Amino acid sequence: MGIVLKNILAVLPEGHQDVVKETNIYIEDSRIVAIGTKPAGFVADKVIDGKDRLAIPGLINCHTHSYMSFMRNVADDLSFMDWLFGTIDPIEQQMTDEDTYWGACLAIIEMMKSGTTCFNDMQMNIHQTTKAVKESGMRAVICRGLVGSGDDEAGQIRLKQAYEERDAAKDCDRLTFMLGPHAPYTCDDAYMRIVSEEAKKNHMGIHVHLSESESEIQQIKEKYGMSPIEMAVQNGLFDVPAIAAHCVQITESDMDILKKKNVSVVTNPASNMKLGNGFAPVPAMIEKGINVCLGTDGAASNNSLNMFHELSLLTLIHKGVKKTPQCVSAKEGFRIATINGAKALGLEQETGSLEAGKKADIAILNLNTPSLTPRNNLIAGLSYSANGSEVETVIIDGKITMENRKVLTLDEDMVYKKVNDIIVRMGLDKKEY
Amino acid sequence: MGIVLKNILAVLPEGHQDVVKETNIYIEDSRIVAIGTKPAGFVADKVIDGKDRLAIPGLINCHTHSYMSFMRNVADDLSFMDWLFGTIDPIEQQMTDEDTYWGACLAIIEMMKSGTTCFNDMQMNIHQTTKAVKESGMRAVICRGLVGSGDDEAGQIRLKQAYEERDAAKDCDRLTFMLGPHAPYTCDDAYMRIVSEEAKKNHMGIHVHLSESESEIQQIKEKYGMSPIEMAVQNGLFDVPAIAAHCVQITESDMDILKKKNVSVVTNPASNMKLGNGFAPVPAMIEKGINVCLGTDGAASNNSLNMFHELSLLTLIHKGVKKTPQCVSAKEGFRIATINGAKALGLEQETGSLEAGKKADIAILNLNTPSLTPRNNLIAGLSYSANGSEVETVIIDGKITMENRKVLTLDEDMVYKKVNDIIVRMGLDKKEY
Ligand SMILES: [Zn+2]
Ligand SMILES: [Zn+2]
Repeated sequence: MGIVLKNILAVLPEGHQDVVKETNIYIEDSRIVAIGTKPAGFVADKVIDGKDRLAIPGLINCHTHSYMSFMRNVADDLSFMDWLFGTIDPIEQQMTDEDTYWGACLAIIEMMKSGTTCFNDMQMNIHQTTKAVKESGMRAVICRGLVGSGDDEAGQIRLKQAYEERDAAKDCDRLTFMLGPHAPYTCDDAYMRIVSEEAKKNHMGIHVHLSESESEIQQIKEKYGMSPIEMAVQNGLFDVPAIAAHCVQITESDMDILKKKNVSVVTNPASNMKLGNGFAPVPAMIEKGINVCLGTDGAASNNSLNMFHELSLLTLIHKGVKKTPQCVSAKEGFRIATINGAKALGLEQETGSLEAGKKADIAILNLNTPSLTPRNNLIAGLSYSANGSEVETVIIDGKITMENRKVLTLDEDMVYKKVNDIIVRMGLDKKEY
Repeated sequence: MGIVLKNILAVLPEGHQDVVKETNIYIEDSRIVAIGTKPAGFVADKVIDGKDRLAIPGLINCHTHSYMSFMRNVADDLSFMDWLFGTIDPIEQQMTDEDTYWGACLAIIEMMKSGTTCFNDMQMNIHQTTKAVKESGMRAVICRGLVGSGDDEAGQIRLKQAYEERDAAKDCDRLTFMLGPHAPYTCDDAYMRIVSEEAKKNHMGIHVHLSESESEIQQIKEKYGMSPIEMAVQNGLFDVPAIAAHCVQITESDMDILKKKNVSVVTNPASNMKLGNGFAPVPAMIEKGINVCLGTDGAASNNSLNMFHELSLLTLIHKGVKKTPQCVSAKEGFRIATINGAKALGLEQETGSLEAGKKADIAILNLNTPSLTPRNNLIAGLSYSANGSEVETVIIDGKITMENRKVLTLDEDMVYKKVNDIIVRMGLDKKEY
């Protein structure tokens, strides 16, 4: 199957910058085979007219919990403890495998409709998110959330499940897997060491929550006399390619560790504000040379999985915190939301930018929209004025998964209905009426 | 003309709260004539099926500069001085009346498509924004920006223009007018007094920028030995109904003045962050009982006029700043974006909530969208997960101005083309390519 995006404005990498140029993009099977001139022998089965359109690399959501989408807006404006133990936990008790499947489908629809083509997921019910990913055509990196202690059999069972899930997805090369020790307050040091060893042995990366809240910092300090970052490095978590979500409450010396061990940090601005955790020191991390990428976190604490929303937060809030307009620029933000995410996931050869040889993971935006008019600095437009609804067509792994804003691979209306049914069954539908 | 919204979920006021209920909304000519039971003699010329839909009062954007929309994304990630004097000012020099008309049209399209039905505008070219408002069917409060000194003829000419503009719009009751002394650093104290006297004499409100940046605070301190709020109250600006935009850098005693003089404060979170001015003390102002309302500011400093985006910022950032999830709740935020705005503009009898007797200013959202699924706490959905593109139909003053996301009153594609042409003429189109 050959697809050509004809005479289209495109965000293309040029050294360490991105530029916008009019060009042609040639796609064969799953990959971009050329940008600019038509390669010899290329046959276009489909021509997408680039007039009034902008092609960008699909955004990469580096930290989410897709199944939680069915819990969107169920628990807001609450203290963290009331949120987690009063609302989220009781819901998780009632949750079936099917619920998590529909939650993942909803998450994928929301992400696809706002230009995300790859996400990094930590989840609890194996086979459900991978099923939704396979069906939808999305790209994803999955980890089964691991909680436990070194002498606890449950922790071992969860590890086994992580491998089971990975092995069952061998037929889908859009899926890769990591190990996901949940956090220092849910995994003890012995369990962290077990997970690190397993990751090393199996050549897998690690995806972990670190230094999210002040209470976590206190708790880990009391228990181990060190910071969560120090606890993680001591127990080997950073001896494999690692992604640390949050890193809100970190010191200069924590940052030095993250840099030295090549840890990628996922910043989740909406979730950090919404739960009252504050603002991660993103400008300082960028200055240190840490690979910062962007995530939405789950819909129970955001409540949106729209990466355009997250990108606008990323490029606005630090200007407010640091009181300077020259901080986390639109161009920096866009790379954080794309290529930096690909690097964090070990996929920088495959996705994160529009380049010949990479997978065709592309979002096409309609420029005849108020938020992208006028056409001047379109990268500023992507960060500051777009809301995600400008995305019209999505191509993932060379397949068109959304066209004219209709998702082709999942039944949108069915997913909305199924998710609403869950909420009715759980008695959560009338909560605020 | 009778319109009925049949069996529709609606956000309705109940005391000092909003609730979501399924109901019927009956509209005759420009007004809501009943909610719930059909009034005697009502004839429906049009029935809008409320299935899977949510009706909300149209959002009220309490501070913007609509004409600046053609400057969207032309000047980003710059210091304030480079922004204003290096980019914005030179563009304003080249700007024609027609440019400002197309800019205002673009602003109105963006606002309408994201559920705003009324805006408060400070502008420089008279007759242009009012023309766009008349044609589009929008509701607006307009002031001609006034800059000058007490002994300066230009300041007097601008005042005369403000009246001319008001008088020329007498035929359109969707338009009301205020006087708009720009700011303490562009109007001296003598001119402020002249404008205050004029406002009193003509029974007009005042719309002014106050306490936006730290450099303004310093400048006014040096010149007058007081704060901008003190300077404003001393020169009579608060002796008429007044709206103060920004109020980022204010003291406890400034807040006491604002409360005592019943001044409404428009908070503009995106603009304040983007220009590096920081975060307004919104939670403290709410606690003081100040009427806080919400604005986007102009597209040159935001760069979006999407009030859903602004509402999400309003309800997220203060949780981050105050490190508590229980601060500026979704419900508070929604009132700030609706009824508080109506109060600030002296229009609380006319708009800002869905009530029988008020003008029919309504946005209808499609609930079969990922961001509003599941249907539980829909007011949380409006603040935290909606992006504005869920708005499908807009009714202003009883007329349908947008249907199925198509603006009926302006030619969208023509406006995009005209605005792009301005940018090409000014040589700004290739800036970042
Ligand atoms: Zn998380
Ligand atoms: Zn302004």
